[in-house]
Amino acid sequence: MTRDKQPIYPIDLWDVTETAFLLENNYRNETTFSLSNGYIGTRGTFEEAYPFDEDHGLEGNFVNGFYESVPIRYGEANFGSPPRSQTLLNLPNLKETKLFLDGEEFSMDAGSMKGYSRTLHMHDGLLERKLVWTSPGGKKAAINIRRLASFAEKHIMAIRYEVEPLNFSGTVRFQSALRADVENHTRKTNPIVDYGPFGRRLDPVKLTAADGTLYYEGVTKGSGLTVACGSTHRIASGQPIINRTYHAGALDGRFSLTVKAVQGQSVVLEKMICYATSLDMDLGELEAFTKKTLEAAVKTGYDRLEEAQKGYFRAFWQTADIEIESGEGLAIRQGLHFNLFHIFQSAGRDNQTGMGAKGLSGEGYEGHYFWDTEMYVLPVLIFTAPEAARALLRWRWSKLPQARERARILGHDKGALFPWRTINGQEASTYYPLGTAQYHINADVAYALSLYLQATGDTQFLTECGVEMFIETARVWADVGSFSDRRGGKYCICCVTGPDEYNVLVDNNFYTNLMARENLRHAAGAVRWLRENAPAAMDTLAARLDFHQEELALWDKIADNMYLPYDEGSQIYPMDDGFMIRKPWDESRIPPEKRAWLYENYHPLFIMRHRMSKQADAILGMYLHSNYFSQEELRRNYDFYQTVTLHHSSLSTCIFGIVAAGIGYMDQAYAYFSDSARMDLDDYHNNFYAGIHAANMAGTWQAVLNGFAGMRLQRSKLSFAPRLPEQWESYRFQILFRGARLCVTVGREGAEFVLLEGGPVRFDLFGHEVTLERAGGRYFEKI
Amino acid sequence: MTRDKQPIYPIDLWDVTETAFLLENNYRNETTFSLSNGYIGTRGTFEEAYPFDEDHGLEGNFVNGFYESVPIRYGEANFGSPPRSQTLLNLPNLKETKLFLDGEEFSMDAGSMKGYSRTLHMHDGLLERKLVWTSPGGKKAAINIRRLASFAEKHIMAIRYEVEPLNFSGTVRFQSALRADVENHTRKTNPIVDYGPFGRRLDPVKLTAADGTLYYEGVTKGSGLTVACGSTHRIASGQPIINRTYHAGALDGRFSLTVKAVQGQSVVLEKMICYATSLDMDLGELEAFTKKTLEAAVKTGYDRLEEAQKGYFRAFWQTADIEIESGEGLAIRQGLHFNLFHIFQSAGRDNQTGMGAKGLSGEGYEGHYFWDTEMYVLPVLIFTAPEAARALLRWRWSKLPQARERARILGHDKGALFPWRTINGQEASTYYPLGTAQYHINADVAYALSLYLQATGDTQFLTECGVEMFIETARVWADVGSFSDRRGGKYCICCVTGPDEYNVLVDNNFYTNLMARENLRHAAGAVRWLRENAPAAMDTLAARLDFHQEELALWDKIADNMYLPYDEGSQIYPMDDGFMIRKPWDESRIPPEKRAWLYENYHPLFIMRHRMSKQADAILGMYLHSNYFSQEELRRNYDFYQTVTLHHSSLSTCIFGIVAAGIGYMDQAYAYFSDSARMDLDDYHNNFYAGIHAANMAGTWQAVLNGFAGMRLQRSKLSFAPRLPEQWESYRFQILFRGARLCVTVGREGAEFVLLEGGPVRFDLFGHEVTLERAGGRYFEKI
Repeated sequence: MTRDKQPIYPIDLWDVTETAFLLENNYRNETTFSLSNGYIGTRGTFEEAYPFDEDHGLEGNFVNGFYESVPIRYGEANFGSPPRSQTLLNLPNLKETKLFLDGEEFSMDAGSMKGYSRTLHMHDGLLERKLVWTSPGGKKAAINIRRLASFAEKHIMAIRYEVEPLNFSGTVRFQSALRADVENHTRKTNPIVDYGPFGRRLDPVKLTAADGTLYYEGVTKGSGLTVACGSTHRIASGQPIINRTYHAGALDGRFSLTVKAVQGQSVVLEKMICYATSLDMDLGELEAFTKKTLEAAVKTGYDRLEEAQKGYFRAFWQTADIEIESGEGLAIRQGLHFNLFHIFQSAGRDNQTGMGAKGLSGEGYEGHYFWDTEMYVLPVLIFTAPEAARALLRWRWSKLPQARERARILGHDKGALFPWRTINGQEASTYYPLGTAQYHINADVAYALSLYLQATGDTQFLTECGVEMFIETARVWADVGSFSDRRGGKYCICCVTGPDEYNVLVDNNFYTNLMARENLRHAAGAVRWLRENAPAAMDTLAARLDFHQEELALWDKIADNMYLPYDEGSQIYPMDDGFMIRKPWDESRIPPEKRAWLYENYHPLFIMRHRMSKQADAILGMYLHSNYFSQEELRRNYDFYQTVTLHHSSLSTCIFGIVAAGIGYMDQAYAYFSDSARMDLDDYHNNFYAGIHAANMAGTWQAVLNGFAGMRLQRSKLSFAPRLPEQWESYRFQILFRGARLCVTVGREGAEFVLLEGGPVRFDLFGHEVTLERAGGRYFEKI
Repeated sequence: MTRDKQPIYPIDLWDVTETAFLLENNYRNETTFSLSNGYIGTRGTFEEAYPFDEDHGLEGNFVNGFYESVPIRYGEANFGSPPRSQTLLNLPNLKETKLFLDGEEFSMDAGSMKGYSRTLHMHDGLLERKLVWTSPGGKKAAINIRRLASFAEKHIMAIRYEVEPLNFSGTVRFQSALRADVENHTRKTNPIVDYGPFGRRLDPVKLTAADGTLYYEGVTKGSGLTVACGSTHRIASGQPIINRTYHAGALDGRFSLTVKAVQGQSVVLEKMICYATSLDMDLGELEAFTKKTLEAAVKTGYDRLEEAQKGYFRAFWQTADIEIESGEGLAIRQGLHFNLFHIFQSAGRDNQTGMGAKGLSGEGYEGHYFWDTEMYVLPVLIFTAPEAARALLRWRWSKLPQARERARILGHDKGALFPWRTINGQEASTYYPLGTAQYHINADVAYALSLYLQATGDTQFLTECGVEMFIETARVWADVGSFSDRRGGKYCICCVTGPDEYNVLVDNNFYTNLMARENLRHAAGAVRWLRENAPAAMDTLAARLDFHQEELALWDKIADNMYLPYDEGSQIYPMDDGFMIRKPWDESRIPPEKRAWLYENYHPLFIMRHRMSKQADAILGMYLHSNYFSQEELRRNYDFYQTVTLHHSSLSTCIFGIVAAGIGYMDQAYAYFSDSARMDLDDYHNNFYAGIHAANMAGTWQAVLNGFAGMRLQRSKLSFAPRLPEQWESYRFQILFRGARLCVTVGREGAEFVLLEGGPVRFDLFGHEVTLERAGGRYFEKI
């Protein structure tokens, strides 16, 4: 299970550092060093804007939710096949900043370079490059470039470019550019997609260069959305500017700025970059807004933006960091930091944007949002950054109208069906067996919502958004199946695809039925709560949704009679009705080089007729609702699914690890966890270039808290069952829970719970209740 | 069940006649009056070549097996998705023949017309148009145009164009054209296809007009196939030609020919048209072959071609005609004649071509061959035109190499998987859930092969082709499933689609499993037969196919242990494992205008999750292998499937009618039969414009012989259980069986069996054996 992959970057607690620039690593490292603030995303490309080919680099700048759309052609289109695509659009690049020392252009290809390092400062949310460059003509300068995507101002990305002439005095010229002739690398980043976008998809509306400011406005050919962007430039080190030139072409703008530099005295350029789109405001406001925002950023200055950035990240890490004492703890903590850093920075925070499976780090998966957000990322954010979690749920809520429309297309007279893949809220999956058929997305959203509500007690959100989300998702479950006298009158759901993408269009997928049941229960509970606590609000909502009491009775009946497939022979829960009769999987018939890439090498029918599984499916359901299953049951099921699961998805091993920990298989739990913790940092899947695997990144946090510490939040009850991996001396983490801050330390001696803020907090520990009344409260128990 | 649709054409035993030309009927009538000889197909368009728009007409000329191919784009392509299409290509038109009377062009839109009729002479295999036309200038002429696609010479289509000046003497000019600027009407004829072909797909290689001959050669842009075609022209009535002109453009050729005509004396133009392609011969031979074939046809002359044509059809009808005495017998017989005419003329006869679901009558279904040929058409041809049946089976055999390749793509190390849709032998289905997943095609081919062998005793074909086909199809069945201890060790086949296209990717489809079992049995039987009767041939074949004895043992084991789903509650065979638990179908939720067009109006998932069926599926299996089921079982299953079958396929009602007759539900049998008999002639489905429904057409013959007369050929035993519909006085039919000709008459008194040729013939009648020793032998039994 564990890989023998060597660490790519030096082991370090908070930094990920590239110590040499190598072309063959560049595409991958652009993802490693990508920055985001949940709104702007920018890949870790260089200011020198090297012209890498499609196999070695992708200049990428994105705005969350900003997509291009082109018609999709199908071999044979079905009713309800999305007619148009949604793809996160690669936007004009404004990072480009060329440096000239007495006219000699800085390039890592020319002259000579010493002391090169590029570091992602995960603790501070910054990227920094340092080097000393000697030009072919012998001019030597120390260069330090810092970059951030600001959490203080979501429209702003800032660059601080410092040059210190080491052996000369002369001119230092910065040439800053805006490049709008940009296109997605669809063939490379989404090779199975045949509909594009191809070519440049932004038509320029305006491009100006004046007063130290570059400005661009362009509209997409397909989706009709407008993006505005611009940059401003200031010499922060005080040297007077002796020459300025401007250029504004059709698709590019340049601003060049020269100062006299003195040996030993740094020249510092501060460059502010702003993106805004017509999704945020009226078209007519974009230019004024962009320029005003840039102006304000200039006034604030880079240093204060960096201070604010560090403050945001400090607050996050205070809660989210997991301290591990162990021989190999540093490597693992670095992996965890990398994972948490990327999911934290990628989550949309403005109630209008979700979070892509790849964050904003690359073009993979067309930038689509999937269930990864709700089932992997949200359980982390809910306990570490609940405001961010709320914003993501608020985004889902805002897409109910599109989900209602989709439910009608799927033949449901009431309710809402969330899309399997989307950016704008409409379904973007072009292959329904692995797309729309994954109805469980509805229950996933409801699960995350419920978890959020249980962890925060946010009744305002429940009232304003939550009840509506519960009702609308539940309605689809109440319509999609039926009570079958062939199953003792139980409620059966046919023809859906569960999380496992190798078992497709099945009947009674265990995960789906289980999650649907809980969705119905939560919906019924929410309606009853609202009726009791805010009857007027409930009446208004019922009238708006045409909701009737009989629906509640039906939900109760379905929830009480949900069918879960059970195999008498092995006493396990099969993934679905047909799973146990499928053809046994014979790995020896698969050449090794094809084993991890089944869909690329085998027909779907070959894959689907075999008894094997791509990823955690039934097991995931048993983890999320472990309260319904005995340890013995979990063990039997884990043992079974161990033998049939291929872990061909990055969403799989972390879940198996959690379940393994829960049943005391600590060796396996630790092995799975190890496999997850540095998966992206060490690029186990060899596809990190296309973007992060947000779900697995989040899964590693879950592996520690939900796995090793056995944390659950079920039926509004927080519980722990901490264990210590033998490889560790101790570990410590914090969670936010209903306004309180709880610190948990698990060591060789036992587990310590300290209430740092708020309270009281009640939780179950190995089945008995513990209460910490107020801040400072402490409880210790031997394990 | 029966429709209240009025007959479109006058009721007549052997003729289908259009008595007035109406634009709104034109597109449909082009199919009605289409002609074919199994090689050339031509739609019933006019010699005047009216420029109808895409909603009113389609000039269509086809050569069986000649296809164009374009790249297919998929929303998301799977491994094994066909990368290129196959579409029956609409070829250059050579029928165009304009007539000028003293310079006035004949058009049905100009002047005035009397006595118009256009008649399909089904008994003779001819199309004839008659009318008297008065030109705007007052010239009056009787016009008679006859057309045939020659069964004597497959490359030849002939037109006889007779003009009799009724009130003038003057010039008669024929202007014959070749139009190569032709394109498929893909958007109209295959609206769900988004990949084309669009635009003109033939690039001209050569176009000449000289010596009374037009000649064209063109190559397709995509498939690289070459078609050659030409026409010759002769005044058969003897008048000297006073003027000739030629024109040869890039994409059209014309030949104009003027004679002096005398009032009361007919002028007769004989025009021979030839098509040949690079699929038939080397490229370099095409021109010489075409011209030589045309020359020979001219020498033969139209009249002798027509005589030969009549001879071919006379022979066919002698066997195939079903005589019915009844009040409404004429209408039904007309329907049956129409059906049999079209399937007989459409079947490829040259061992190199199959038969499309639409014959060669239109562009529907892209001209693809499906299972319709084997399961609907072949059972008719096997008993009425066994040579034609043999040729179609020979064609399937010739596509074994492509089917082997396909089996490898589907993950089978051995064996062959026939394509669900094809022209060139490769899979052309772009949507695998309704395409490649229909594995039953393999068993369907084996079934037809077995039926052919049982009916003809053609051991030569068995030796040369049959055993190989059996082995290769059986091997896929032996690999696709597995013995499951969850089903008592029975052999289960998962993740296939049966004939029913509303229940997709199911486990243990009853029809598939049953047919696969028989396929395995026939294969085992064939291998044993060959080993015994031609051991050397078997050794050679075994070596070539790497066939081992263990395979035989496995086939036996699978056949003996094939799982068939059975529902204890209702004592019926469900279509598949999940059928009984699907959501009950509630037709009231479907607006009436959408009910017959579910895939056009509902998402596949909505359709697939409901307990209902598009068409005969399990019931078809029970009909084909009725020997395994008791009357009581058949009745229970029929009753059940009656309630869940929507008959949204033209392949359904005929099968239900057959089963109904078998269990004594004669009213329902007759109603289903009536619904089938004139389905195409009266265009019940409103889509006849796109081409014939060959399967249903063939199904009507089966409805009489296999339905009313209860004919079966199972385990090499012919049997009958004749019943007489109460609407009829009697019916009579003939079959060819192992070289003998048997005539069966069923009347109010009883059933009479007369051996007309050959013998002895043995058959079961209501369970007891009857033997007719020699020609003239007769047996009568009261019923």
